[in-house]
Amino acid sequence: MEESVRIFSPATVANVACGFDILGLALDNPGDEVIVRRKAGSGIVIRNETPYTNIPTDPDANTIGVAAKAFLEHLQSDAGFEITITHKIKPGSGIGSSAASAVAGVFGINLLLGAPRTKKELVQFAMHGEKAACGSAHADNVAPALLGGFVLVRSYQPLDVIRLAFPDTLYIAIIHPQIELKTADARKVLRTSIQLKDAVKQWGNIAGLVAGLARNDYPLIARSLEDVIIEPVRSLLIPGYEKVKQAAIEADALGCSISGSGPSVFALCETEAIAHRAAIAMEEKFSDLEIDSIKYISKINTEGVRALE
Amino acid sequence: MEESVRIFSPATVANVACGFDILGLALDNPGDEVIVRRKAGSGIVIRNETPYTNIPTDPDANTIGVAAKAFLEHLQSDAGFEITITHKIKPGSGIGSSAASAVAGVFGINLLLGAPRTKKELVQFAMHGEKAACGSAHADNVAPALLGGFVLVRSYQPLDVIRLAFPDTLYIAIIHPQIELKTADARKVLRTSIQLKDAVKQWGNIAGLVAGLARNDYPLIARSLEDVIIEPVRSLLIPGYEKVKQAAIEADALGCSISGSGPSVFALCETEAIAHRAAIAMEEKFSDLEIDSIKYISKINTEGVRALE
Repeated sequence: MEESVRIFSPATVANVACGFDILGLALDNPGDEVIVRRKAGSGIVIRNETPYTNIPTDPDANTIGVAAKAFLEHLQSDAGFEITITHKIKPGSGIGSSAASAVAGVFGINLLLGAPRTKKELVQFAMHGEKAACGSAHADNVAPALLGGFVLVRSYQPLDVIRLAFPDTLYIAIIHPQIELKTADARKVLRTSIQLKDAVKQWGNIAGLVAGLARNDYPLIARSLEDVIIEPVRSLLIPGYEKVKQAAIEADALGCSISGSGPSVFALCETEAIAHRAAIAMEEKFSDLEIDSIKYISKINTEGVRALE
Repeated sequence: MEESVRIFSPATVANVACGFDILGLALDNPGDEVIVRRKAGSGIVIRNETPYTNIPTDPDANTIGVAAKAFLEHLQSDAGFEITITHKIKPGSGIGSSAASAVAGVFGINLLLGAPRTKKELVQFAMHGEKAACGSAHADNVAPALLGGFVLVRSYQPLDVIRLAFPDTLYIAIIHPQIELKTADARKVLRTSIQLKDAVKQWGNIAGLVAGLARNDYPLIARSLEDVIIEPVRSLLIPGYEKVKQAAIEADALGCSISGSGPSVFALCETEAIAHRAAIAMEEKFSDLEIDSIKYISKINTEGVRALE
């Protein structure tokens, strides 16, 4: 049996404009690297090798630890693991940092124990980490981080996770403005009730997006990438948002919206060249406001979390 | 140029469980027959050859007349038409009676004028008839009646109508209990605001339904045919609804819900045999409450409104 495994766990874009809490997609870049090692005795030890150090290594305060312990408890296993994290996805970026960690932990432990559970079965345990990170056990980051591709969380009770068909040519541009925005705060600004007429628009768009992705209908995908419920509220927390979005659309992106709860903004693009143009255009708009930003260009990652080497 | 045309215009099931105001499908049976004839002079004359007579023949009070006049006005045409209706779809049944009429009228006039507009372009004119019939210019009956198949109305402003992929084996069972329920009343019971968490469930289901239809995934279709917003309220207007629905599911229907604003109830089924079983099972439950009902079994109509002969 293997004693240690090195893992790549991808960043993810949740919501994808119209799919609040139900849609997410996985990226090839960035992603976290995590090493999971068996250790003597039981329990979880977390080591952080990230250059910045504000990550709790107490397993009960760290998303990896919470997810890993929930998984081991489910397996009734008293095995022990040391988990070493090198974060490349910045915490608080809105591209699934906590999900990538939680996913890497449960995936690595599962591998070292001889893979008793499928990737889909791991979603529920990784969700425990999300709950610890932001107070809400959502699956729209952990499910794509595990499974890769464009993932629909059709239902939470019971959990029903579905990989959607999508054009394999799609590229994503991500721009991460260096401003702080906590997921829990981004959730607080949301209203608990919404207008039925707005909900009708939203489910028209989500249906259009799923249909467009399934048949490579780019104009339909573009028309459907519209969020009338969440974006109008959350975008107020991101300085210059409207101009950033407009710049991406003018660079020929199919659509542009907030990644998860932000502050990162994503643009879905037909080609790599368009994604580059969109990323540069978005970066310039933040730069105009003297906000530094980090950009990523990525294909959609079709495999999800994986062992390296 | 033809002087007259006989038209078959299909009944339709709007909403289809989770797709309130955005989804509809067309039936092969029942459907209305309408004859459109050119007449001397301008204007619209309506004749009713239906055995029951409570249909207004004043063109400004009849859905056909309103839709036809809107279309002629758009074309700036002063042509005149006599439109003779034989209703087989009972008004007030919830399977798109007013939509079938409005669609037949504009489709017939378009044909007799040399088809200056596509079927898709006719949707907006047929919608005028719907507004006259129930106060709301919805398109989830007229669009499938025109285009056939499973139709998504992604957006109303601008109007964006999309034919969805679906398994060509599907059958529908319809049960029309002989109780009166006005569309306008069925709309009145709806709340104008809804819980965000319920909306999330609904758009998870609509996404699941569109994905399931596109890849012939019957279990996914079945899991997605759930309406947590509209059905819980409107079903209170249909005596015995829960038992009728349960009977259809026990007869192996993929799902069962209210057709449009009711009182008809539909069951979506994998085969004709299941649709027969479901229809009989639903009929029995209404019969237990001494409610007579009419049942229909139909494939999904893939062509929509058409000229006969």
